[in-house]
Amino acid sequence: MQKLEQVYEGKAKKVFATDDPNLFIVDYKDDATAFNGLKKGTIAEKGVINNRVTNHLMKLLESKGIPTHLVKELSDRETLVKKVKIVPIEVIVRNIAAGSLSKRLGLPEGTKLARTVLEYCYKDDELGDPMINDYHIYAMQLATSEELATIAAYSFKVNQILTDYLKDLGIELIDFKLEFGRLADGTIVLADEISPDTCRFWDSKTGEKLDKDRFRRDLGGVEDAYHEIMKRLLGE
Amino acid sequence: MQKLEQVYEGKAKKVFATDDPNLFIVDYKDDATAFNGLKKGTIAEKGVINNRVTNHLMKLLESKGIPTHLVKELSDRETLVKKVKIVPIEVIVRNIAAGSLSKRLGLPEGTKLARTVLEYCYKDDELGDPMINDYHIYAMQLATSEELATIAAYSFKVNQILTDYLKDLGIELIDFKLEFGRLADGTIVLADEISPDTCRFWDSKTGEKLDKDRFRRDLGGVEDAYHEIMKRLLGE
Ligand SMILES: Nc1ncnc2c1ncn2[C@@H]1O[C@H](COP(=O)(O)OP(=O)(O)O)[C@@H](O)[C@H]1O
Ligand SMILES: Nc1ncnc2c1ncn2[C@@H]1O[C@H](COP(=O)(O)OP(=O)(O)O)[C@@H](O)[C@H]1O
Ligand SMILES: [Mg+2]
Ligand SMILES: [Mg+2]
Repeated sequence: MQKLEQVYEGKAKKVFATDDPNLFIVDYKDDATAFNGLKKGTIAEKGVINNRVTNHLMKLLESKGIPTHLVKELSDRETLVKKVKIVPIEVIVRNIAAGSLSKRLGLPEGTKLARTVLEYCYKDDELGDPMINDYHIYAMQLATSEELATIAAYSFKVNQILTDYLKDLGIELIDFKLEFGRLADGTIVLADEISPDTCRFWDSKTGEKLDKDRFRRDLGGVEDAYHEIMKRLLGE
Repeated sequence: MQKLEQVYEGKAKKVFATDDPNLFIVDYKDDATAFNGLKKGTIAEKGVINNRVTNHLMKLLESKGIPTHLVKELSDRETLVKKVKIVPIEVIVRNIAAGSLSKRLGLPEGTKLARTVLEYCYKDDELGDPMINDYHIYAMQLATSEELATIAAYSFKVNQILTDYLKDLGIELIDFKLEFGRLADGTIVLADEISPDTCRFWDSKTGEKLDKDRFRRDLGGVEDAYHEIMKRLLGE
């Protein structure tokens, strides 16, 4: 497997072509951004932690029947993945009100939602990833109704699997963001990452935040929180 | 029928109790607001026009099988309606991109949508009527899934009926806002108003705006536009 030219550099990762046209290499950076890129910084070792945490959770999900882009961890920061066309929809799964939902709907952070909430955002940095609904998705032809049904069903199942798994590690899964992609044959698979950058993790006992909110809100102890997540999940 | 105490004064209408516990009187004002109350003004005769236009369209919808709150027009500005508990969801139906949708999704005003779009907003002035989706509605218990299915089906049917009717009058129905309520027995009926305040009407030939956007955007000819709509719909 040969790492070829960089095809994309995002806010948290670089993506490289390989000599196999169906495979990419993802390379995790320590760069951290928030508020659609307005706030910038670095979190030491974040790239390593997010790479390893993502792969650990993707393996778990694969074992429970969720198809993912994961092929093989190559190094501390690099992972071989199936190349997909990303569906330009960010799926947010929410169990407990926090962040933008709390602000928008006036629900205090920590409010348990009577039902799990899915939100879709149109993945477009220039527009600020605006929230959209099923009808917008069909009108803008971002996904077919079959694809969206698959994406919603996978999202709920991922939520169930991760919530149960993390509970045993003393972590409450508040909310998280998923991205899905299409393989060359159109199959929908889970892509991108699942990490403290893209999830809200609260310590089950103390309620302490163990995720990127420590960076967003200048709470201090950012690196410690990322390490704590890696320790609980990977035992190191 | 006796008009008793005022039970609510909104931005565009007053609502009065009557000696029948199941009936209210709605009284239309000339007050105009925009941008969630930030912009205020008066549109001469708006109350009369919106009262008469709303009743005219509600009658049409009733005749085509949509249950509405309309009982009887009492005067130029007053209408007897069935008292409902308003479902705190504003339903926006969109055929052509305009206004907030255009801004949010980067679709130029006038873009035909490949499919009709429904949007739901949580009716809460303090929060600025934020957009929500089905999952938020269930999590906040604003409506049951049966109620929401009824509301969505009525909204699409109202769109079909009004689009066809207005086309013959040289008016293109770009988008509009509906409110629904529950009668004492829980039946869902269409309530509130359908007027140039709550719809975008464009002249089919010239594209001229014949609705509240003339007020919102300081386009001039506001009163003329409201009168033009009344003339085309009611022949006067
Ligand atoms: N398997 C994959 N194939 C192709 N692109 C992917 C895959 N997994 C993730 N991506 C995309 O690669 C980019 C990862 O970089 P990231 O720094 O997260 O970018 P962004 O700033 O767009 O969030 C994202 O745009 C993501 O959608
Ligand atoms: N049949 C009805 N029964 C009870 N309330 C109604 C009915 N129809 C409309 N309403 C409510 O009465 C109010 C009408 O006044 P309006 O000036 O439009 O208020 P707002 O400023 O809240 O939009 C709205 O809140 C609307 O939801
Ligand atoms: Mg990203
Ligand atoms: Mg109103």
